[in-house]
Amino acid sequence: MPLTLEQINAASVADLTEQLHGVYEHSPWVAEDAATKRPFTSLAHLRQALVTVVREAPREAQLHLLRAHPELAGKAIDPQALTTESRHEQVQAGLHACTPEELAQIQELNAAYRAKFGFPFILAVRGPRGQGLSKAEILATFARRLAHHPDFEEAEGLRNVHRIAEIRLNDKWGIEPTLGNQVWDWAEALAQHSEQDGALTVTYLSAAHQACAKDIAQWMRNDCGFDEVGIDAVGNVVGLYHGENDQAPRLLTGSHYDTVRNGGKYDGRLGILVPMVCVRQLHRQGRRLPFALEVVAFAEEEGQRYPATFLGSSALVGTFDSTWLEQVDPQGISMREALRSAGREPDIDTIATLQRNARHYLGFVEVHIEQGPVLNGLDLPLGIVTSINGSARFTGEITGMASHAGTTPMSMRKDAAAAVAELLLYLEQRAAAHPNLVGTIGILEVPNGSINVVPGRCRFSLDIRATTDALRDACVTDVLAELDRICQRRGVSCAVQETLRIAAAPSAPAWQSRWEQAVTALGLPVHRLPSGAGHDAMKLHEILPQAMLFVRGLHAGISHNPLESITNGDAELSVQAFQRLIEQLAKESR
Amino acid sequence: MPLTLEQINAASVADLTEQLHGVYEHSPWVAEDAATKRPFTSLAHLRQALVTVVREAPREAQLHLLRAHPELAGKAIDPQALTTESRHEQVQAGLHACTPEELAQIQELNAAYRAKFGFPFILAVRGPRGQGLSKAEILATFARRLAHHPDFEEAEGLRNVHRIAEIRLNDKWGIEPTLGNQVWDWAEALAQHSEQDGALTVTYLSAAHQACAKDIAQWMRNDCGFDEVGIDAVGNVVGLYHGENDQAPRLLTGSHYDTVRNGGKYDGRLGILVPMVCVRQLHRQGRRLPFALEVVAFAEEEGQRYPATFLGSSALVGTFDSTWLEQVDPQGISMREALRSAGREPDIDTIATLQRNARHYLGFVEVHIEQGPVLNGLDLPLGIVTSINGSARFTGEITGMASHAGTTPMSMRKDAAAAVAELLLYLEQRAAAHPNLVGTIGILEVPNGSINVVPGRCRFSLDIRATTDALRDACVTDVLAELDRICQRRGVSCAVQETLRIAAAPSAPAWQSRWEQAVTALGLPVHRLPSGAGHDAMKLHEILPQAMLFVRGLHAGISHNPLESITNGDAELSVQAFQRLIEQLAKESR
Repeated sequence: MPLTLEQINAASVADLTEQLHGVYEHSPWVAEDAATKRPFTSLAHLRQALVTVVREAPREAQLHLLRAHPELAGKAIDPQALTTESRHEQVQAGLHACTPEELAQIQELNAAYRAKFGFPFILAVRGPRGQGLSKAEILATFARRLAHHPDFEEAEGLRNVHRIAEIRLNDKWGIEPTLGNQVWDWAEALAQHSEQDGALTVTYLSAAHQACAKDIAQWMRNDCGFDEVGIDAVGNVVGLYHGENDQAPRLLTGSHYDTVRNGGKYDGRLGILVPMVCVRQLHRQGRRLPFALEVVAFAEEEGQRYPATFLGSSALVGTFDSTWLEQVDPQGISMREALRSAGREPDIDTIATLQRNARHYLGFVEVHIEQGPVLNGLDLPLGIVTSINGSARFTGEITGMASHAGTTPMSMRKDAAAAVAELLLYLEQRAAAHPNLVGTIGILEVPNGSINVVPGRCRFSLDIRATTDALRDACVTDVLAELDRICQRRGVSCAVQETLRIAAAPSAPAWQSRWEQAVTALGLPVHRLPSGAGHDAMKLHEILPQAMLFVRGLHAGISHNPLESITNGDAELSVQAFQRLIEQLAKESR
Repeated sequence: MPLTLEQINAASVADLTEQLHGVYEHSPWVAEDAATKRPFTSLAHLRQALVTVVREAPREAQLHLLRAHPELAGKAIDPQALTTESRHEQVQAGLHACTPEELAQIQELNAAYRAKFGFPFILAVRGPRGQGLSKAEILATFARRLAHHPDFEEAEGLRNVHRIAEIRLNDKWGIEPTLGNQVWDWAEALAQHSEQDGALTVTYLSAAHQACAKDIAQWMRNDCGFDEVGIDAVGNVVGLYHGENDQAPRLLTGSHYDTVRNGGKYDGRLGILVPMVCVRQLHRQGRRLPFALEVVAFAEEEGQRYPATFLGSSALVGTFDSTWLEQVDPQGISMREALRSAGREPDIDTIATLQRNARHYLGFVEVHIEQGPVLNGLDLPLGIVTSINGSARFTGEITGMASHAGTTPMSMRKDAAAAVAELLLYLEQRAAAHPNLVGTIGILEVPNGSINVVPGRCRFSLDIRATTDALRDACVTDVLAELDRICQRRGVSCAVQETLRIAAAPSAPAWQSRWEQAVTALGLPVHRLPSGAGHDAMKLHEILPQAMLFVRGLHAGISHNPLESITNGDAELSVQAFQRLIEQLAKESR
């Protein structure tokens, strides 16, 4: 019988360690050290305490923990050598029944991995949903991780140790993250609709896009108990869960359901599905809040099909420009024609009426996968967004003088690439000097470069983002001034063109604080971070106070990529955080 | 009547200045200052003294000299505003008879040029051969130079001022560089043979290549009076001018007549034509030397058609590998088939016999266009090569981690491009720290780079050359060690592959010294420099002492390019230097 939270907090260190036996493979010291961090306010708190013990342990102890794990399928045939837990997991993954070819492949990977990193390959074979990865998925992950840098892979190994521990703890306590599973399963179901075989691509008004809208509307209506569900003139799916009375103000929330080409399953969609589960729970309990919940699945945010972006949220804030209707996609189909084909023709002229009246709304909140490495690197499931960064982009080209790499003395060169290299390193240190600033040269190319020619031209891009416009603009000014100095000093010339400038959207302090209270109430530490990417909240910011909650992305937070992933555990915490937020808001409203 | 050299050295400053009136436009101070540098040992010495005065003048005086020149066609219709010399030159270039469209175009260029640089566009419209550029050539040059960096263009303007002065001096003294003209005209005639319309491309054994060989052989035989002329089994044209007797040793000289694609007219060919003119002069005088002159027009050096390079000189040093005969060109034609088509089939088996016996030769000398900016930048017509640089080449790729440019904090990045940028700047300063060393990253590319993605990969090349192998290898070692440190520090990985390593070929001191004496005897300063590019002399180095003479290339020494050019005056000096070298050698041999 697992101990209750109260019993855990009261237990002797020995009893607690015994209770946590096997959670961290052959490493009781993790539980012993965590015991000193009591009292815990939640099981999430306990889990996080175990993680923190490992994070704060000396590197030797971390390596020892890694090395305490068995090789994959290494001794799966030899039950003696494995802990009960490990054997169970490996058998569940089918690793006890490999073909000789599979076994040979795994042994080869094991040897190469150990030779490169000095510890065994550790993978939470139960996977992000906890139901087990296929052998093919396991092998693909193995091959991919073998290519990692040792520093990164050491951290990735530890992250898998923590995921294994999370699943083992859940098993021990008989806990199933059913809310998170629902989010995860809906995301999986939505991902069945795609324009592309073998890749997730859902662009505005494609058949896959319409199928997603249909699924979402149906789930809202049939599974969640929203009172009103509809698809509006631009394709947004809008679900309304009434408040206690007709005069109740509304809380607006949601995110987008379109994707980039070959994108991930959670970008946008998570922010639709999390509040849907919350409404489902409210409905099951027959509860009404002093405010209505309006959940919007925005039709378009990514700008993949038409030059205009944020089509869905623009309609809500009243900045949908009707001339956009004449924009054409790469196939020459205008947005108007696409809306017509999607059966939205009768509504086209009503787009302007979609604009929301801010007076009827309390504010806008959005849950989103982080799409960055911060939470993953800190082993934290949730983060509080302080601001959606303002950004500025430039493309540039430096012109020096192409010359013979053998015959041109260093002092007589006009090396265009060297000038860009200087700029890159300047930008890197300038941006690193402030925590809320990032700067990137993502495009860098000597056109038609030859091994024996001093570069006469070098193309580059600049992308500078910051939590405030002032911070961004100061960086832009410094970088362009430095570029000028570099060109002067090197006797090269430069043409730079600004291609984009978007204002920052700082979170509304009251709403940011509500997210912080919600996360704290879950027993999790509050970690604040800016959003480097743009989100629908950036548009809603124009008419409503807004704040976002970030959810950890696996694999260093990779996004816009099929590897984009979250665990069912983190999805569960997102739903719980959203529930806390609305409870808090309900309390304030009375 | 022009003064003799003796009279020049004895004249009063005022008389000398009067004599040089109009040579430097409205700037008698140039002649006045040059007067203090007397005595002059040659007219070349006088010319160089005038150049030096301008070089050493304060920048304000240089700008004043530039501004003293008229605009192109600006007032060509108004003879009052132009000096006699300027009017003569502009009329000769047809600028007095522009169509209204041409005039409008020139005025527009004049205005843009003056706005950018603050001085008028100055061009020696008589051109490199002294016979006048076409209006189309003038306009193309104008447009090209308008794009230059101001520092460079200021120097280019002054170089044109000196070229104008050289031509005016020649006119004044009634001097025609007939030997240089012959070299220039032969180079022009050879350039009529090409595989490509509108570009000079002569690759091994093409029809154009065979036509070149035929011309050279014919000129050697009919125009120059070589005693024996033949085309050998690999396509080298070999001309022998007998010495005083059959036992006379031989001086070997020559260079290659193949070109790169869209190459220049002088690369290689200059080193064939200069000794040919010398032999022609000896023959005309009926002179025999205590040694024979063997002039070889090497069939192949550039490696454009087959992977193997230096085919011609390899045959002479006995390293022609018979397996090369089976190499195929991009059209699938083997070298053996190409030799067969060129009618050389009966000789293929005799290639090995082309190897020269070093005991019969005094050494190897080669005249070559510099293919670099050094002499052009120093306003020097000739330079002495100290060594043909040893080189090492690598290609590499750094792998970091691609991540979102907005969401990845600076501290969590693994930016592959930033690592290469660091390497580039390290290489630049490491190479610059030693005058006989150059290092280049000519290929630099983030594959599929995006403006909003931190570079996960970056491809680059390394090209490192030095006068000695030890110097080169020390640099290679340091650069690779630094690359390692950068990768360690940044947590990125790198794969580097060496693609080439060629030994340095230092000049034989005695032969280098003979070139120095020859240049000194012409009244020119000795400037020593390494050869950054490879040359046939590098192969001959394997069996004979060798030394090279470099001739200034115009347009910052650009080569492997249609803009590659030399003046007839510099060609004349090359011939004179070669004549001095053989006179000196004759003296030593007696």
